[in-house]
Amino acid sequence: MRCQDATVPAEEPAGLLSVGGARPVMTDDVRERVDEAIARRRERVNEGIREQLPIQHPERLYEASRYLLDAGGKRLRPTMLLLSAEAVTDTPPMTVDYRSFPDLGGEPIDVLSAAVAIEVIQSFTLIHDDIMDDDDMRRGVPSVHREFDLETAILAGDTLYSKAFEIMLETDAPADRSVRALSTLATTCTSICEGQALDVDFEHGADVTVEEYLEMIEWKTAVLYAAAASIPAILVGAEEETVAALSQYGLDVGRAFQIQDDLLDLTTPSEELGKTRGSDLVEGKRTLITLHARKQGVGVDSLVDAESVETVDEAAIEAAVEQLREAGSIEFARRTAADLIEDGKARLDGLPGNESVTLLRGIADYLVERSY
Amino acid sequence: MRCQDATVPAEEPAGLLSVGGARPVMTDDVRERVDEAIARRRERVNEGIREQLPIQHPERLYEASRYLLDAGGKRLRPTMLLLSAEAVTDTPPMTVDYRSFPDLGGEPIDVLSAAVAIEVIQSFTLIHDDIMDDDDMRRGVPSVHREFDLETAILAGDTLYSKAFEIMLETDAPADRSVRALSTLATTCTSICEGQALDVDFEHGADVTVEEYLEMIEWKTAVLYAAAASIPAILVGAEEETVAALSQYGLDVGRAFQIQDDLLDLTTPSEELGKTRGSDLVEGKRTLITLHARKQGVGVDSLVDAESVETVDEAAIEAAVEQLREAGSIEFARRTAADLIEDGKARLDGLPGNESVTLLRGIADYLVERSY
Repeated sequence: MRCQDATVPAEEPAGLLSVGGARPVMTDDVRERVDEAIARRRERVNEGIREQLPIQHPERLYEASRYLLDAGGKRLRPTMLLLSAEAVTDTPPMTVDYRSFPDLGGEPIDVLSAAVAIEVIQSFTLIHDDIMDDDDMRRGVPSVHREFDLETAILAGDTLYSKAFEIMLETDAPADRSVRALSTLATTCTSICEGQALDVDFEHGADVTVEEYLEMIEWKTAVLYAAAASIPAILVGAEEETVAALSQYGLDVGRAFQIQDDLLDLTTPSEELGKTRGSDLVEGKRTLITLHARKQGVGVDSLVDAESVETVDEAAIEAAVEQLREAGSIEFARRTAADLIEDGKARLDGLPGNESVTLLRGIADYLVERSY
Repeated sequence: MRCQDATVPAEEPAGLLSVGGARPVMTDDVRERVDEAIARRRERVNEGIREQLPIQHPERLYEASRYLLDAGGKRLRPTMLLLSAEAVTDTPPMTVDYRSFPDLGGEPIDVLSAAVAIEVIQSFTLIHDDIMDDDDMRRGVPSVHREFDLETAILAGDTLYSKAFEIMLETDAPADRSVRALSTLATTCTSICEGQALDVDFEHGADVTVEEYLEMIEWKTAVLYAAAASIPAILVGAEEETVAALSQYGLDVGRAFQIQDDLLDLTTPSEELGKTRGSDLVEGKRTLITLHARKQGVGVDSLVDAESVETVDEAAIEAAVEQLREAGSIEFARRTAADLIEDGKARLDGLPGNESVTLLRGIADYLVERSY
């Protein structure tokens, strides 16, 4: 990990770095295969969600629980989970039913249940996060507490929480592996809560170091990628070091994903972003970009002269982003994310050299090359 | 189950039934032994909570998570769990370390972890319930969202949720039993959410039958008693029918507990209750008492002429309770609870005739004889 180094290399001309994504390292061919891999697995995951989380009595609760899941989402984490199962077992992509996927001893495991469980956890965190941030919109639709009400949104999140554990118990894996998968899921959820609590703490002032920020996004965001990448390895009975390598891959690329999210908030036009560009700056959120800028002497708390996200104008945001760019902070964040992606991809070196591993590396690149 | 019968037997003079608790069936001796059993196990459970849920980084999150647990509570459910472990294995009460409790094959199991997990789940539900009901007080202290804030209270509940699963995984039981205990915990949590959602639905009108009400309190309240009573049997490796009997015992006495809670809301003075007496009536909550009264032609929605819990006077509540008493509704609820307790105690007939089984029957009686 080289991301603690806050200096910007002089040989990188800042002018090349003004677009949203990182400098592309993926070839068009790999990019196409990754897009297809995500699209095809997304369909199976969506079927799995409908099968294992049906709208049932009491209907309103389950409608609220399914609301964001039905509204869309790329299904990156469950796609990563399914690819990881294929990579470890050297199974050619999409050739086997994920409900009876052969483990390393040839016994059938329902890895789709694990993929659904991970997406259900993700959806629970979004519902509760939107309440905490009082966000009105998510995935182009009203947030659950806006569409339903506060009570129902809290309960819908709580329902998804235990449902995820129930669904993770439906993999038919041997009991010792099930216990480990469950344990990973539980500690992951605790970490997400801890990371979210730190994120809130950081907003309320105090100096935050780059190290503290990276710890926070590891807990808040990256642990769920680590769970998605490593749980299938646990379920199919992989070696310890394979499980650990996939977990580290998830931690690396998951942190890069969060940094890219912070970059996109600054560099993507509001209409494409689905929310006001620069809202993190207006709300005083700590990101790797503002932490770096503060170190360079930029007064990040007065960068944007606006009372609220509703009243800020685009020119003020553009001027603030220009200051961050001049301080090298945009580039610093971008390089940190790119380094994490390279670290993450290198974690897979011990895995078989199959198409699924190529796609796992491709997804890593995709996480920082995406523009939304 | 005889509680669907809404008629009041003529031979029961209503005058005897005006106090809060049921007609006592416990002897003073058993009552004393139950009190002592609860008090002694409570100390071990409190130690277990401090050991397995320490205040750690990020501190504010864990302070909020521990806040209600530290504020008190009788620890009825974990006490039931520990008694159940002793009852099934025929282990003399409090003679063995609960952290290395011999299962039916003599192997050590940490049943205290299971007891702590159940109490942690109970605490999570209280924190989120208080947000949903916007209740200011709990256990004589401000509710978590009042003492801290909404964000922290949601996160504290979410943290306890996954911590409970982590702690339930620390029993050292064989993996197949652990999986079953985890599965029971997960389905229990889902049921609690479903029951809570039904409770909210019921408030918003529509006729509710006695059967629907009993289903709602089974899900909202009784399933956690069922988990507390049956999980130790799973962990020590008991027979299927023993697990089932203890689960049914929990469902019966848990429903009785909720009905007793509804009765206490009407019959206990505000100062003893810790909240305004009759608040359920003012807020239009559906209880077995008001459902019965409505069937008898009592206009339960206009029983109390008050805008809010803050402005209601004691005389208005007393007059309303008198109407419910005259309609036989208080007695109906009391008899239903008493019948459920008798059913619950009878479920234990197949267990060994040891002191712990006597205490489990005693706790059942205690649940409806308590006055707070």
